[in-house]
Amino acid sequence: MIDPATIRALTFDVFGTVVDWRSGVIRDGEALARAKGIQHVDWGAFAAAWRGRYLPAMQRVRTGERPWTTLDVLHRESLQEVLAEFDVGGLADGEIDDLNRVWHRLDPWPDAVEGLTRLRRRYVLATLSNGNVALMVDMAKRAALPWDAILGAEVARHYKPDPETYLTTAAMLGASPEACLMVAAHGGDLAAAGACGFRTAYVSRPDEYGPRPPRSGTKARPWDVVASDFLDLADRLGC
Amino acid sequence: MIDPATIRALTFDVFGTVVDWRSGVIRDGEALARAKGIQHVDWGAFAAAWRGRYLPAMQRVRTGERPWTTLDVLHRESLQEVLAEFDVGGLADGEIDDLNRVWHRLDPWPDAVEGLTRLRRRYVLATLSNGNVALMVDMAKRAALPWDAILGAEVARHYKPDPETYLTTAAMLGASPEACLMVAAHGGDLAAAGACGFRTAYVSRPDEYGPRPPRSGTKARPWDVVASDFLDLADRLGC
Repeated sequence: MIDPATIRALTFDVFGTVVDWRSGVIRDGEALARAKGIQHVDWGAFAAAWRGRYLPAMQRVRTGERPWTTLDVLHRESLQEVLAEFDVGGLADGEIDDLNRVWHRLDPWPDAVEGLTRLRRRYVLATLSNGNVALMVDMAKRAALPWDAILGAEVARHYKPDPETYLTTAAMLGASPEACLMVAAHGGDLAAAGACGFRTAYVSRPDEYGPRPPRSGTKARPWDVVASDFLDLADRLGC
Repeated sequence: MIDPATIRALTFDVFGTVVDWRSGVIRDGEALARAKGIQHVDWGAFAAAWRGRYLPAMQRVRTGERPWTTLDVLHRESLQEVLAEFDVGGLADGEIDDLNRVWHRLDPWPDAVEGLTRLRRRYVLATLSNGNVALMVDMAKRAALPWDAILGAEVARHYKPDPETYLTTAAMLGASPEACLMVAAHGGDLAAAGACGFRTAYVSRPDEYGPRPPRSGTKARPWDVVASDFLDLADRLGC
């Protein structure tokens, strides 16, 4: 366990950790399907396929194969491919743009707003997401997520898990990496943050990928804090 | 007048426009003087001298004479010089550091929090200040300033009035410059924003420099909105 008094800022992964991307994509996909009379699409599979293109799309930016490109643009390109893969045609550009903005309209996990509100009394709370600033701002306004700052990939012009994403965020918060606690439901994100000197808090989000068994082993990794949700995290940090 | 529906984001100058830097420096300077038995300093003059070194310090970064340097560091260097100029000696480094952080502890003008809270219901509110992110975050937490995003100079790595500061902030907000309304009490800031395509709102802060007549002529400039304070601005934008 860490001494909560040594922490200045909590930095958050967002997709999957704070908000439930899968349910949001299903919700808006099904609404579009009803409006357009589309009946053959499994929107859970659609959500997984769209999200599945996330890492390879960022990878082309991370390697320098293409210049800095925001996640909104990467999402839009992936969406076009997934619509073709699922044989969804006949959508106007504006309808595709609107579906792409579902990432701006994701709902938080039920404990998130209350947990963040408690944590914010004591700590600086910042996003450290691969989502671009406008996406994070829209999401936060809609869902009342009480961030002190929207930082992360776009501000650093590096996608996680590049170390620059973590280190630039810490520097802008005026904090040493050791004074930052990275909060995520994903071991790879925490491992990359930890390699930069961040403290790490694993929060379990077993429903992120829907009804399937969560990957095992994550809790055995040496995270500084392991919490079942944000309320438990607030308890463990004395908030 | 502009059509409020064409605006997505309000971007704010902060020092002088949202917070009263002069009173804050006097307040903490006088407290330090009492604690240390310093009796010969006019803290209003001290505040003006410190603030007076702001533009030249940033200018050396803007011209490339020195690499990117945060305002906290520029303030600290200027403070050392102003302490010498006012013949204040005998302070420990930690005491100077603490006085330097007065910029993180400035109080808002009396109408600011209520006005911002009203404006935020309709618009994205972002800082577009030369203050660094950590400074803005500390100030916002202490004073309950309800920003949606902390952007501006450090994120753009350019000090105002460089156009990059305004244009990077707009781009990160996902807004065209024309969909951003720059709010400031300073004509130069508004003129630079306007040259980038921003809409402009002049807010009068006659007490920024203490008991002296405000510079004339500012209201005659072609700003899109002229408001007496943030409550008046909210009225004019239908919030």
